[in-house]
Amino acid sequence: MPEQPNVSPVRGMRDVLPAESELRDWAMGRILEAYRRFGFARIETPALEHLSLLAGGQGGENEKLIFKVLKRGEKLDLSAATGEADLCEEGLRFDLTVPLARYFAANQATLPQPFKAIQIGPVWRAERPQKGRFRQFTQCDIDIVGEAAEIAEVELILATTEALAALGLGGFTVRLNDREFLRRFARLLEIEDVAVQEKLFIVLDKRDKVGDDAVVAELGAAGFSDVALQGVALLLRSAAALAGGVGVVDQFRNLLRDRRDEQPDAVFDRFAGIAERLEVVQRLMQACVPLLAGRATVAFDPTLVRGMGYYTGPIFEIAMEGAPGSIAGGGRYDRMIGRLLGREVPACGFSIGFERVIGLLMERGVQVPRTGTRFALLYEPGVDALQRVLAEAANRRAAVDGNGVAVLARRKKLGKQLDELEKAGFDCVLLLPEGNGPPEEKWLSGKR
Amino acid sequence: MPEQPNVSPVRGMRDVLPAESELRDWAMGRILEAYRRFGFARIETPALEHLSLLAGGQGGENEKLIFKVLKRGEKLDLSAATGEADLCEEGLRFDLTVPLARYFAANQATLPQPFKAIQIGPVWRAERPQKGRFRQFTQCDIDIVGEAAEIAEVELILATTEALAALGLGGFTVRLNDREFLRRFARLLEIEDVAVQEKLFIVLDKRDKVGDDAVVAELGAAGFSDVALQGVALLLRSAAALAGGVGVVDQFRNLLRDRRDEQPDAVFDRFAGIAERLEVVQRLMQACVPLLAGRATVAFDPTLVRGMGYYTGPIFEIAMEGAPGSIAGGGRYDRMIGRLLGREVPACGFSIGFERVIGLLMERGVQVPRTGTRFALLYEPGVDALQRVLAEAANRRAAVDGNGVAVLARRKKLGKQLDELEKAGFDCVLLLPEGNGPPEEKWLSGKR
Repeated sequence: MPEQPNVSPVRGMRDVLPAESELRDWAMGRILEAYRRFGFARIETPALEHLSLLAGGQGGENEKLIFKVLKRGEKLDLSAATGEADLCEEGLRFDLTVPLARYFAANQATLPQPFKAIQIGPVWRAERPQKGRFRQFTQCDIDIVGEAAEIAEVELILATTEALAALGLGGFTVRLNDREFLRRFARLLEIEDVAVQEKLFIVLDKRDKVGDDAVVAELGAAGFSDVALQGVALLLRSAAALAGGVGVVDQFRNLLRDRRDEQPDAVFDRFAGIAERLEVVQRLMQACVPLLAGRATVAFDPTLVRGMGYYTGPIFEIAMEGAPGSIAGGGRYDRMIGRLLGREVPACGFSIGFERVIGLLMERGVQVPRTGTRFALLYEPGVDALQRVLAEAANRRAAVDGNGVAVLARRKKLGKQLDELEKAGFDCVLLLPEGNGPPEEKWLSGKR
Repeated sequence: MPEQPNVSPVRGMRDVLPAESELRDWAMGRILEAYRRFGFARIETPALEHLSLLAGGQGGENEKLIFKVLKRGEKLDLSAATGEADLCEEGLRFDLTVPLARYFAANQATLPQPFKAIQIGPVWRAERPQKGRFRQFTQCDIDIVGEAAEIAEVELILATTEALAALGLGGFTVRLNDREFLRRFARLLEIEDVAVQEKLFIVLDKRDKVGDDAVVAELGAAGFSDVALQGVALLLRSAAALAGGVGVVDQFRNLLRDRRDEQPDAVFDRFAGIAERLEVVQRLMQACVPLLAGRATVAFDPTLVRGMGYYTGPIFEIAMEGAPGSIAGGGRYDRMIGRLLGREVPACGFSIGFERVIGLLMERGVQVPRTGTRFALLYEPGVDALQRVLAEAANRRAAVDGNGVAVLARRKKLGKQLDELEKAGFDCVLLLPEGNGPPEEKWLSGKR
């Protein structure tokens, strides 16, 4: 007797059952509709990409999590292989942004400019499996390539908020910041080295989880200077006051002035660069706040970081009341495409965490709106003529509002079968009488 | 200066441009609608599966084409590896049937019985790239698990034909055969060895491409007996006469009787088993012919083989006038799930070759039906207030029939921009006048 095979999905991946799949299809359709209203068009890229692209330094920590695919046939010489590079040339994509940049570089001659793309599909990361983290998960991205002005950010934020609202979700807060503001702020604090700046941002990014004091403490332990610690503490203390975003440039200047006793004079020499980025934030706030009124709160959060190293300007995410963390995130990445194409092309994107959103919809017991009726047409094998059964099914299916009819063999224990059919989501059971009459309709509880 | 990176998709895979993507989404939606009318429900399985499952002997030639994924981290010991089995445990699925069988085995306790599943998604095969063959392609499968009677085959054939018709395609021929009929026919010809039977089927399968004479010649060269060659020649000669499928059992018996001089007596002793399978074909024909009248021709083709080794009963495919080969194929595979679950579960499936179908739709210049208007709202950066531009866009987007509005910066050369917008599929361009009036509408040629 052979060993019973392992029929579980591979580690960290999952099977989607019919009820969840229906919800996913519905949500995907609503999101796509919203994106399309904003003039975005869908594209597709392959699941596999060149490892040289995936591991090109743009993906940050995710590059450590690439699933690599073995070369095939004569190209694979195991005995001569000294490392993974000899065995693999391709890997599964870990996000949709790196493939989009390659896609644009490859196809730009035939694409409209600016190019407004939707990309929806699975990505793969070899994460340590844990609750709510999967090794395959779906992302819904929109990107605007070739638009340097803030209209790109505003449209991305409006479209993403509208897509989420189309799912019946609400209570959104859009948090905005600017990566270049953060870089210049770090330089204001005399942190010139980019690697050290990134270190600062990684610690700052933990704020939501650990709180302000722990951030400053961790930076202190990591050997950041007193100027840096004071500056960060000031930023953290001021974050709530700055959230409104109105007059944020003046507000920020005043904040620094008030703290002049703690700050070296050099701070003020460098303020012009910071003010320039704060003005960008201010313009984004001015455009978004009224357009999102009643749908989402918009807040400037000068401590928002977002993980990916490729951001060059505004960054943003959407949080939802009653749901920890964020459900969508994005930002401007003006330099990524230039590395592939040899000329700079501005780009900006926003990604919905589809698995997160589906999880929230399921928690809330959201039901997919339906048109038509789901019929189960039961027949007695060997007694009812297949012709008659199938003609009746075809008849019910022809209804314009989209009925579904499953033809099923009638079981001995009809009561038990009806219970199962109700559980499986059927609305009405059809039973064929002897002779030629129309079927008897048994509506399942609460339906009709 | 760094080397220009390779921005082409990986070998044998492709980027999907916006126009094709729109067609794919539309076609997918229509196919899903048709499947759902027949009571099928969508499921999803991961792209990766255990290699032990994928290479379990059910996938025939496809098992040689698996993309294998490198194990990660400490589990990977390159120096101790003596073969691919030491490096890889998982691979990309090469079809949707093997994953469906695993899915059913894993989740059967919570699934309705019989289980009617839709699975749509990419599969991967490391084929030698050639025209029309890709290393990643999409399949649209429906399967009925847990139904042993022919109603399963009939519903699969009806639903698949309806799905294809919903795309505006027509001129279908449904070709039917039975794999077990073929096996018993081989035994009738004194070919008992299953491996030799499979060899016979592989040659028979080439009939469409090489013709009857070449099939017999190849079998002769391969050392098949005179009895086998005569029997195959008879089958090939009779195929056209049998296609109607009416009274096929008697017809086939008479054929053998007429040829008694060429056939040993043993032939007739074994005819009962063949008649049993021909009766199945006959019942399928009786059910399908009237239900598909006016939509598809149904033909029994006793030489139809289909590649996969896992089929155990009826097999079928759909061909289309003016399109060589088949656009959908399937059959009954009653033993696959049993190998995973330890108890036999009947199953039957039908798969649409989605890439093939999309290719046909593109060749025919099929346009995706649209609701709503696609507007391009042009604004002058720095002149038009973003607020006003975006309010106008929101206004147009709010139309119930689903307008799309792309907000774009107006370029110096407006004529050239209008040409590009028309090419990109826009219907109407909106230009904001100075002051506060409504935008000027410029309808692009042939629209409105």
